Amino acid sequence: MDKPGTTGRVIPALDRAREIKPCPLGAGESCCRVCAMGPCRVTESGKGARVGVCGATPDTIAARNLCRMIAAGTAAHSDHAREVVQTFCAVARGTAPGFELCDREKLSRLAAQLGCGKAEDPAVLAREVGKLFLGEFGRQEGELALAALAPPRRLERWRRLGLVPRGIDREVVESLHRTHMGVDQEALHLLHQGTRTALADGWGGSVIATAVRDVLFGTPRPVRSRVDLGVLKPDCVNIVVHGHEPLLPEVLVRLAADGEMTARARAVGAAGVNIAGMCCTANEILMRHDVPVASHFLQQELAIITGAVELMLVDVQCVMQGLAAVAACYHTRLVTTSEKARIKGARHVEFSPATALDTARELLYAAIDNFPNRRRVDIPPQAVELVTGFGQESIRHALGGRFRGSYRMLNENIINGWIRGVAGVVGCTNPRAASGASHGVLVRELVANDVLVLVTGCAALACARDGLLVPEAADSAGPGLREVCEALGIPPVLHCGSCVDNSRILMMAAEMVRAGGLGEDLSDLPVAGCAPEWMSEKALAVGQYFIGSGISVGLGVYFPGADSKEFAAQVFEGLTQDYGAAWFFEPDPQALARKILAHIEEKRRALGIEGRRERVLYDMKMRRRLDV
Amino acid sequence: MDKPGTTGRVIPALDRAREIKPCPLGAGESCCRVCAMGPCRVTESGKGARVGVCGATPDTIAARNLCRMIAAGTAAHSDHAREVVQTFCAVARGTAPGFELCDREKLSRLAAQLGCGKAEDPAVLAREVGKLFLGEFGRQEGELALAALAPPRRLERWRRLGLVPRGIDREVVESLHRTHMGVDQEALHLLHQGTRTALADGWGGSVIATAVRDVLFGTPRPVRSRVDLGVLKPDCVNIVVHGHEPLLPEVLVRLAADGEMTARARAVGAAGVNIAGMCCTANEILMRHDVPVASHFLQQELAIITGAVELMLVDVQCVMQGLAAVAACYHTRLVTTSEKARIKGARHVEFSPATALDTARELLYAAIDNFPNRRRVDIPPQAVELVTGFGQESIRHALGGRFRGSYRMLNENIINGWIRGVAGVVGCTNPRAASGASHGVLVRELVANDVLVLVTGCAALACARDGLLVPEAADSAGPGLREVCEALGIPPVLHCGSCVDNSRILMMAAEMVRAGGLGEDLSDLPVAGCAPEWMSEKALAVGQYFIGSGISVGLGVYFPGADSKEFAAQVFEGLTQDYGAAWFFEPDPQALARKILAHIEEKRRALGIEGRRERVLYDMKMRRRLDV
Repeated sequence: MDKPGTTGRVIPALDRAREIKPCPLGAGESCCRVCAMGPCRVTESGKGARVGVCGATPDTIAARNLCRMIAAGTAAHSDHAREVVQTFCAVARGTAPGFELCDREKLSRLAAQLGCGKAEDPAVLAREVGKLFLGEFGRQEGELALAALAPPRRLERWRRLGLVPRGIDREVVESLHRTHMGVDQEALHLLHQGTRTALADGWGGSVIATAVRDVLFGTPRPVRSRVDLGVLKPDCVNIVVHGHEPLLPEVLVRLAADGEMTARARAVGAAGVNIAGMCCTANEILMRHDVPVASHFLQQELAIITGAVELMLVDVQCVMQGLAAVAACYHTRLVTTSEKARIKGARHVEFSPATALDTARELLYAAIDNFPNRRRVDIPPQAVELVTGFGQESIRHALGGRFRGSYRMLNENIINGWIRGVAGVVGCTNPRAASGASHGVLVRELVANDVLVLVTGCAALACARDGLLVPEAADSAGPGLREVCEALGIPPVLHCGSCVDNSRILMMAAEMVRAGGLGEDLSDLPVAGCAPEWMSEKALAVGQYFIGSGISVGLGVYFPGADSKEFAAQVFEGLTQDYGAAWFFEPDPQALARKILAHIEEKRRALGIEGRRERVLYDMKMRRRLDV
Repeated sequence: MDKPGTTGRVIPALDRAREIKPCPLGAGESCCRVCAMGPCRVTESGKGARVGVCGATPDTIAARNLCRMIAAGTAAHSDHAREVVQTFCAVARGTAPGFELCDREKLSRLAAQLGCGKAEDPAVLAREVGKLFLGEFGRQEGELALAALAPPRRLERWRRLGLVPRGIDREVVESLHRTHMGVDQEALHLLHQGTRTALADGWGGSVIATAVRDVLFGTPRPVRSRVDLGVLKPDCVNIVVHGHEPLLPEVLVRLAADGEMTARARAVGAAGVNIAGMCCTANEILMRHDVPVASHFLQQELAIITGAVELMLVDVQCVMQGLAAVAACYHTRLVTTSEKARIKGARHVEFSPATALDTARELLYAAIDNFPNRRRVDIPPQAVELVTGFGQESIRHALGGRFRGSYRMLNENIINGWIRGVAGVVGCTNPRAASGASHGVLVRELVANDVLVLVTGCAALACARDGLLVPEAADSAGPGLREVCEALGIPPVLHCGSCVDNSRILMMAAEMVRAGGLGEDLSDLPVAGCAPEWMSEKALAVGQYFIGSGISVGLGVYFPGADSKEFAAQVFEGLTQDYGAAWFFEPDPQALARKILAHIEEKRRALGIEGRRERVLYDMKMRRRLDV
């Protein structure tokens, strides 16, 4: 191992995080790099300069930096969504032979919801929906059509504050413009633009990405699978698919199951081909095809170090550059597949909807052919069971089956206090997090206090590794939540997909408002979000769109810019006045859980449902009263 | 003066620059702040970490940072362009009473060039052109229509390299996505995306902004005016318009000349109303209405310190936050006018095309009413003459009048060596620049060596203050250039407008290729660009689009990321292979001039025109041969 590293050795991210001291100025975000009069290091304490060369104050700098990070996160989610929509359009045109329109029922429902007509032919319908979705990216004026999915009270509030996004791309570009030197210099005004941009992500790009992938690959339903490095098989050709785009992996998974591939694998001495997911690509194919997961962000280099990975495919986002150096020490072939990304030292085999089948076949052959090059194999045996596949549809189903499935039952259980509230635990895994097991500590505390937890992204995979994503985990839940989980046969922690799928949590929250009894706006719900080990700028976009939607969000690790008291006052308190929600910061997972619980109880008090009520069996008369 | 400053005093930017040490890590751009595993400080020298926590190498970090800065610059220019197009569309719809379609000839020419039909009614034509332009921002697929304005060889090269921009906004968003943690990690691949984004700025946003403003407010023709703080009048109500958007200032200038305003001013004891420009707003109204200029970026705070400014209007870009603190010490009212920007301590009066006349009137009244609040006035007497108003149209005109105006005459003079080449000197003024008078030193050297200089932005205003923008400056030119300037009655340094108007320089270069005799691509021309005192991210976007177009560009101050040798090798040399042009870095203005001269001579040699030839009077036969 003589590739570049901090000490001349290849060391994975966890070690590097120990060796590299993060720049305190950049983290506190008193660091301004938007023009060449700087970079300026500015602090409110007055130890260094108190304003930048242009006169920028710490709160302006912090707001500018946060707004730019939100824009980058939005760009990442939405550009991913665009890619999926373009494949979807190609499928509708019949120019993507490896794909089909899998969930036609969801397609019809979407088309009806969006006013895209009622054509019988799914291809025609898909073309209409695809055109509308693509239009949301380039829209120059008016309102993002998808903003109408939000509860009416929320939409009204956005209109009053001027927060309804125009086009997705336009908001990202305007955020970059406003954070350019000498443009927008008032923290709250910048934060509002950050929110408008984030809303374009949450209600735009992310909703689009989720909807389209469901139509293309199937809307998730609960399935069981396994997680951790132990899912790699010593006797099989192992392929790890890593990144965020499910397009190529979908085809790969299908082709790998083909008899031809097994035969080919056997010819080189392997038992077959084993595909494992990593990061959000994992979440995608796990949700839909129970493909096992080699695990989250921080385990990407470790997968290679098992010596058992013949091929690692990476596309976009959260792919460590360190992979190339690690792979070079093993027989693993690292292949980049997205037009948007290259890594020095990795081979590039580009995905395109038109040639996906051929590309997938080529890659499978390459993996199989690489099996004989294996040297020492050392796979940690651990692999944990999990149940996944929860979204607004499958939860609705779980709540009462196809016949009378409704979020009303969830609301009733919240109103009667058996469930105190709902928490979204999302985001990344980060070697800088205060505790190596933030997610487990946090989520156990929430569940024990009768809070139903929805998880996505790498946070979901961390919870899965901790054994929290199985119905049996209900044993550690509070008595109310446990009874509900046992009755429905669901885990107390519901895996809702990849980080783009936070849109599912938004949609579920909107369903809860619609179902009635918990107020009229998202900000009335006893619901909170958090990203205890956030790492990516996407987590900030997600947080900001939840807050802009009325759901408060807690952040771990560090809060960028919080060194500025004026800025901190805005993000932690000021925003509440406008949005009915704000950020909170808490790096300790136990304390974070307590803050979430306090927030939920406060919302319950405001709704007048602070106590636990006995469950009442509703008769028809009472039910009719609810319908009003 | 007890407002926040670095030492508790209000001190303008020059002093702050002396007091604040720029962060060497950020400048060298070994600083990576794109995820919360950092911020990582990484150096190639091995003093600190050699890779970031994710394994990112210094060249990747530098390329990512540059790409993001280019995206921000492109966003700034293009979002400004969008604003102008939206006003243009409102004018075409008849909903912007303060504006009209001023240059209908240019409108028809544009419409023909863009294939927008030949409607007789200018409003109809404008609607068509406006629709096409607006479409360029939101375009999702295909090619930016305006890319077709480039010489065919260049367009062909872009196609080969995959560099033709799709939509303007899309490229900015993709750049943000690619620079997100763990996406694109190969320096050259990132630089190509930076180029595609920059080209969307240069050939898209900037061309659109320039074209539309010319149609709305008139295509510039040579006019004389004056520059420097001495243009403020001690006996008049002084209004300084500062920023980048000419929309409101256009109306303001017109209304200020109204008898009513003079009478109102007299009633408070002033002789009248005097409007002066600052930064690029200055360039706009200077080019079209000979409105005097209080000068460039670095003088914005100094204008207020004269005590003679009743009102300073600011819109977007390059507006120092320090203005608020300075204005608070004087009677000056600071007013923000763009929907996109606020400054704490400034009043906000929002511009909108529909109400521009009323807003302008309200602001004029406010300025006049503020005149009696003046305290001590101390205006430095200096004000220098300048000639402005050069663009592809007026230069064509200067080269031979309406009858036979053509760039061929310019090319002939370059071929015969009377003019050695053309240099664009653009960008900002920066207190960090090596010399307080970079522009003067640099431009005098170029002109003395028979290089025709085109200037824009704050660089143009710095040259103007140095007395270089008058025909008399030809005295200091080399003998060849002097003779040409004297024959045509033009200065050796031509003021081509604001920083968005760098598109005019692109168009002129394209005209030179079309006129023949100097190769078939922009990269064949004996032309170079530079931004000796760049400050804004826009300057990097401009530089990158010139380089992507085949014209090499020199940068002063510092080159972000140049600490990485691998990255430096790419930007300073590697790019040449693909683009026929690259960056060069030289903070010393004299040395920068020598590098530009050497570059021009190298291009001449490649064209086989290294020597000075005697001028030949072309007869009809020779002229016909050129036509082939």
